[in-house]
Amino acid sequence: MGHILVVGSLAYDTVKTPTGKIEGALGGSANYFGVAASLFASVRVVGVVGEDYRAEDSELLSKKNIDISGVEHTSGKTFHWAGEYDNNLNEAKTLRTELNVFANFHPKLPESFKDSEIIFLANIDPALQLEVLNQVTRPKVIAADTMNFWIGSKMSDLLVILKRLDILLINEAEAILLTETSNAILAARKISTMGPKHIVIKRGEYGVVIFSNNRYFCLPAYPVGEVVDPTGAGDTFAGGFLGYIGKSGQPLSLDLLKSAAVYGTLLASFTVQDFSLNAIKNLTFEQVEIRRQDFRQVVSFPT
Amino acid sequence: MGHILVVGSLAYDTVKTPTGKIEGALGGSANYFGVAASLFASVRVVGVVGEDYRAEDSELLSKKNIDISGVEHTSGKTFHWAGEYDNNLNEAKTLRTELNVFANFHPKLPESFKDSEIIFLANIDPALQLEVLNQVTRPKVIAADTMNFWIGSKMSDLLVILKRLDILLINEAEAILLTETSNAILAARKISTMGPKHIVIKRGEYGVVIFSNNRYFCLPAYPVGEVVDPTGAGDTFAGGFLGYIGKSGQPLSLDLLKSAAVYGTLLASFTVQDFSLNAIKNLTFEQVEIRRQDFRQVVSFPT
Repeated sequence: MGHILVVGSLAYDTVKTPTGKIEGALGGSANYFGVAASLFASVRVVGVVGEDYRAEDSELLSKKNIDISGVEHTSGKTFHWAGEYDNNLNEAKTLRTELNVFANFHPKLPESFKDSEIIFLANIDPALQLEVLNQVTRPKVIAADTMNFWIGSKMSDLLVILKRLDILLINEAEAILLTETSNAILAARKISTMGPKHIVIKRGEYGVVIFSNNRYFCLPAYPVGEVVDPTGAGDTFAGGFLGYIGKSGQPLSLDLLKSAAVYGTLLASFTVQDFSLNAIKNLTFEQVEIRRQDFRQVVSFPT
Repeated sequence: MGHILVVGSLAYDTVKTPTGKIEGALGGSANYFGVAASLFASVRVVGVVGEDYRAEDSELLSKKNIDISGVEHTSGKTFHWAGEYDNNLNEAKTLRTELNVFANFHPKLPESFKDSEIIFLANIDPALQLEVLNQVTRPKVIAADTMNFWIGSKMSDLLVILKRLDILLINEAEAILLTETSNAILAARKISTMGPKHIVIKRGEYGVVIFSNNRYFCLPAYPVGEVVDPTGAGDTFAGGFLGYIGKSGQPLSLDLLKSAAVYGTLLASFTVQDFSLNAIKNLTFEQVEIRRQDFRQVVSFPT
């Protein structure tokens, strides 16, 4: 089984949704990804936190046997994101981004992390994503996420990163923006000419589209009615997805990506049912398996 | 095998999409539905056309053994819809609706139509939908579509119709509007308390959600990159869906609805690949079956 390395944010989030509001709650791509992936495989986290980072939040990861020796503690405040969602829960409106300790962050991998086989470069500056790739010695699967902000401001670095990727995970709207196309189907095909071998387009409540070896796979989301907070759903998906791939130890194939996407989808469906990491921090593999049985009924049909 | 009755529009459409433009091309819910359903079962059409309705357009249906003896020919012009789509092909912007002969239309079923077993009330005034139901003598499956216009202006008639339905087919945005909920999952559940036993929510490029006997079925759309014109996709879906149900002769069950939705989805995927009925008017069942094999790969995963 390969070790999974995630480089991303550990954050405090202030989030308002039609259901309610949280202030300064645990968030960040590395936290969502790490908790999800730890259900499947051994996870290593690289990131940075400030003096205000709560001990219990570090312990949440370490208790799951996630190696947090790559999390730098530095003076200053932890990265803080504030956002809100209106009734259309598919898109967050960012109210405030306080980079704080993240402003001068340069990922530095502990020696023991450098042999990680599965690398997830969460949605951070593509220049930092490149710094990570320059430190890993034998990656088998390199995956990354990105967003509109980097597409606008760091396109040249992003294009370099894309050429290094086995898997790009990206939101539908951002895939369309990146490729100047009009839908996920065309966007996925075009991204495959920019470097990534496998493309995972995340469509929120509509599920995912995967494009791999010139074939599509479309998977609906698990039907959750009462969505409380979609924050972290994409990173949770990535954690379940790459966690499953890491656990399998198999080379990437469309069938493997399909199974992995099912787990990513299921884990994300828990995340959106509560604020912060509340719905996944104590989640067991058995609970996921129960929902997977139900999901099979939801998406399968007589042939 | 049950006869299928459709009551809806026979129209001429002027449509502009990012790909091109057509003027006065054949359209209307009854045409899309009829052509699609005729691949499976015997179809009867009730509607009205004006003096300008072209003989070749009537022949398109009659050549497929669709019974058009319920299509009234009257003085005046045929119903005309003009609309356009921007890059987001999910939503049409109506530029002009000329009711013409449709303004005074009251559906009158030929005697020979009254024993139809499967009834599709396309998206027309709910008061007219009720007039149809008062004329059929032994319906086994009553299905209808509706839209925001009627939700706004004819809510009381609509609520009466809903109580009579076995199946409601409705666009996602309109399901949310009708139920004052925030997503398709909640909307479907709420609609099930308003009368319809089975609810089919159409999500355009994202596929459909079906809610039946307290269970969900989610099916993605067939991945079409180059969407030329989405007009008629919903009615084509309904035609394939109810056509399959009619052909099966089986009572409604979730499994039957699932299989029917697959055919509806496939037929709709052809419709959007060309303007007007161009992509389905000569479509063969063999072409549908070929795409169905491909679709199975697109949506299935190892279990």
